[in-house]
Amino acid sequence: MALSKKPVTGMKDILPEEMEIRDYVISVIKETYASYGFTSMETPCVENIANLNCKAGGENEKLIFKILKRGEKLRLAEAESEGDLVDGGLRYDLTVPLVRYYSNHANELPSPFKALQIGNVWRADRPQRGRYRQFMQCDIDILGEASNLAEIELILATTTTLGKLGFKDFQIRINDRQILKAMASYSGFSEDDYDNVFIILDKMDKIGLEGVQAELLEAGYTNAQVEKYLGLFRDMEASEDAVAYIMDVLADILPEGVREGFQEIIESVEATKGDFFELRFDPTLVRGMSYYTGTIFEIAMPEFGGSCGGGGRYDKMVGKFTGNDVAACGFSIGFERIILLLTESGFQVPKAGKKIAYLMEKGIPADMLCKVLAQAQKEREEGNQILVARMNKNKKFQKEQLTAQGYEDFKEFYKEPLK
Amino acid sequence: MALSKKPVTGMKDILPEEMEIRDYVISVIKETYASYGFTSMETPCVENIANLNCKAGGENEKLIFKILKRGEKLRLAEAESEGDLVDGGLRYDLTVPLVRYYSNHANELPSPFKALQIGNVWRADRPQRGRYRQFMQCDIDILGEASNLAEIELILATTTTLGKLGFKDFQIRINDRQILKAMASYSGFSEDDYDNVFIILDKMDKIGLEGVQAELLEAGYTNAQVEKYLGLFRDMEASEDAVAYIMDVLADILPEGVREGFQEIIESVEATKGDFFELRFDPTLVRGMSYYTGTIFEIAMPEFGGSCGGGGRYDKMVGKFTGNDVAACGFSIGFERIILLLTESGFQVPKAGKKIAYLMEKGIPADMLCKVLAQAQKEREEGNQILVARMNKNKKFQKEQLTAQGYEDFKEFYKEPLK
Repeated sequence: MALSKKPVTGMKDILPEEMEIRDYVISVIKETYASYGFTSMETPCVENIANLNCKAGGENEKLIFKILKRGEKLRLAEAESEGDLVDGGLRYDLTVPLVRYYSNHANELPSPFKALQIGNVWRADRPQRGRYRQFMQCDIDILGEASNLAEIELILATTTTLGKLGFKDFQIRINDRQILKAMASYSGFSEDDYDNVFIILDKMDKIGLEGVQAELLEAGYTNAQVEKYLGLFRDMEASEDAVAYIMDVLADILPEGVREGFQEIIESVEATKGDFFELRFDPTLVRGMSYYTGTIFEIAMPEFGGSCGGGGRYDKMVGKFTGNDVAACGFSIGFERIILLLTESGFQVPKAGKKIAYLMEKGIPADMLCKVLAQAQKEREEGNQILVARMNKNKKFQKEQLTAQGYEDFKEFYKEPLK
Repeated sequence: MALSKKPVTGMKDILPEEMEIRDYVISVIKETYASYGFTSMETPCVENIANLNCKAGGENEKLIFKILKRGEKLRLAEAESEGDLVDGGLRYDLTVPLVRYYSNHANELPSPFKALQIGNVWRADRPQRGRYRQFMQCDIDILGEASNLAEIELILATTTTLGKLGFKDFQIRINDRQILKAMASYSGFSEDDYDNVFIILDKMDKIGLEGVQAELLEAGYTNAQVEKYLGLFRDMEASEDAVAYIMDVLADILPEGVREGFQEIIESVEATKGDFFELRFDPTLVRGMSYYTGTIFEIAMPEFGGSCGGGGRYDKMVGKFTGNDVAACGFSIGFERIILLLTESGFQVPKAGKKIAYLMEKGIPADMLCKVLAQAQKEREEGNQILVARMNKNKKFQKEQLTAQGYEDFKEFYKEPLK
């Protein structure tokens, strides 16, 4: 037998210290989102392979862990391609399964449906430091709410949760795919070019306005288009109220209600939120997934280079399963990044009760053991963590180890009273 | 695109009502086991296929969901058998991964290591009512504790958890593989026959003493063997203290310390436990897995035909990975059965705070929206669940729906004061 002690390539074992933080974060998430009326739900980790390949997964579809057919259905000799061998795959996100779930159960679910999902997803990405092939996602979604109340509640619930975990001075960046499109249209790009233009725009953070200009020109767009487009960003930058400015410019192009809806999100979040984070209109925010149809948002943490989560409105995805579109909007927290940031900052999980270790000399008689156990049961009932352990020969070392695990008090029990 | 609304065959979507119970049960489990000094840990859901096929999984090894190799490693044209195509599989239990994890991290873990795992496992079993191909397991294990303190703490922690969930009048049945073996040896069975004899003995519950007798004879064992063997069970049944009786009979065969260790488990649990469950020596208890080396135990619920969990000592499994045996003992709760029993009994999750729905008339102006949101934030801070929703045209129906979801109070907000 060649047994491997290591986890499979790119996946990780989680040690007790990290698990304690993860369990705590999950409990805060569940409690806070519940206070906003979100209800937990779960789908199987395995999905039909056809669903995973439905084009809603973008690049992730190339990274699926595929599951071999079983029994008679597996016909190796006749198989011509991978597709003949597999019938399922591990989910690469929680959005595709959510939409399938909603399509399957809409009649049994409240409307609007406010869903909380915390679950693992799998992507066969090239393994790299801090990125794993199995990782936890934490998504909230509201299905069946067409109004901007969805965006407002999603942003308030997510930021409140982050605040409870001690995060502050972060930014929520917000934009709208319809503003993005209207700006591109206004500048003379054709609809077929949008995706390409947005991919370049998305690099603004890294390559700046000149870099974006260079890449757009290199991609073959005309000087006039590029100048008009970038002029909008320069003018917004210079204006006192970027939202008002761009809404005025795009007044004739934007669909009805976009301006009012977008401004109301900003106003009401501004009025309600604490001062531990900033809400900022970011006209360069693109978000990768092509399924977004309206508002998009992202969490930017000062301690962390990239995004720590994000989301947006995707009103056209349920229709792929049911034929009838349903308004949908979601916000995903970068769970693993949150854990990483908390771990690196030396975060300590708030304690409930005392951690006390009972150490019993070896060979303690049965009647004394019963008394020790009864006392432990009683102290546990009172809300404490009681570890009952055999006393090691090297008691000093044992106590040092237990202290490192957080045990703050010790009780010792001997066969005979100590002299 | 042929998108399927259903989950994959044999796996299930979990609706909010059931999730609420599951989340609650998990929180009680985590809290109670933590009070006994168990620490959470996690392994990836995917394991190396060689580990899963290590013979520690018994019949489950036939039920593995296997994962296709990826990229260049997948050579379909050259593949001669399934084994050439796969490199991983979904875990079928939490014990094999635990042992791998312990082997990998022993230096970083406390000794003894008291582990709590709550996680999904997958078995490609034939789908049947109430049994799914993905299901949650909840295991506690103590590694590195050779004394019976492991068994005692496992039984106390598990029964206390069940008690907190409202279960009562259940039984913990306890036996020891060494007693089982000594009884077989005493009756003249050879060591090679033990597994076969135990498989038949395991049916005692269903086919009774005569049934077992018939099957043993049919299997070719001698009348003398079978009579002597079954005589032991009859005599125990008739004796006042079955444990004392059988220990006396087997005195010369049992390894040293088994009697004292086993009796101490029973005595100390008896002395410590509340009266909400019964601990009972069951000499017919076998437990399926061949990896058990000592004490074995099982939960029997009156409401439920079969077992609701079980476990035992398996001192020889870590050695398969490391070459050095480590004392190990575990207890697994039948999580899905617990959920099923609670759901069927109409179990209500204890409430924290009030559930209140805010209903806003459509078209409410932004400044009023801000006030509603601020009030909701405040009431959430006070520990309540506040759902902010747009008021439907059919308000009465909407309220009925919300009441069914547990909302017990409503606040209504209109564009203009009601006349």
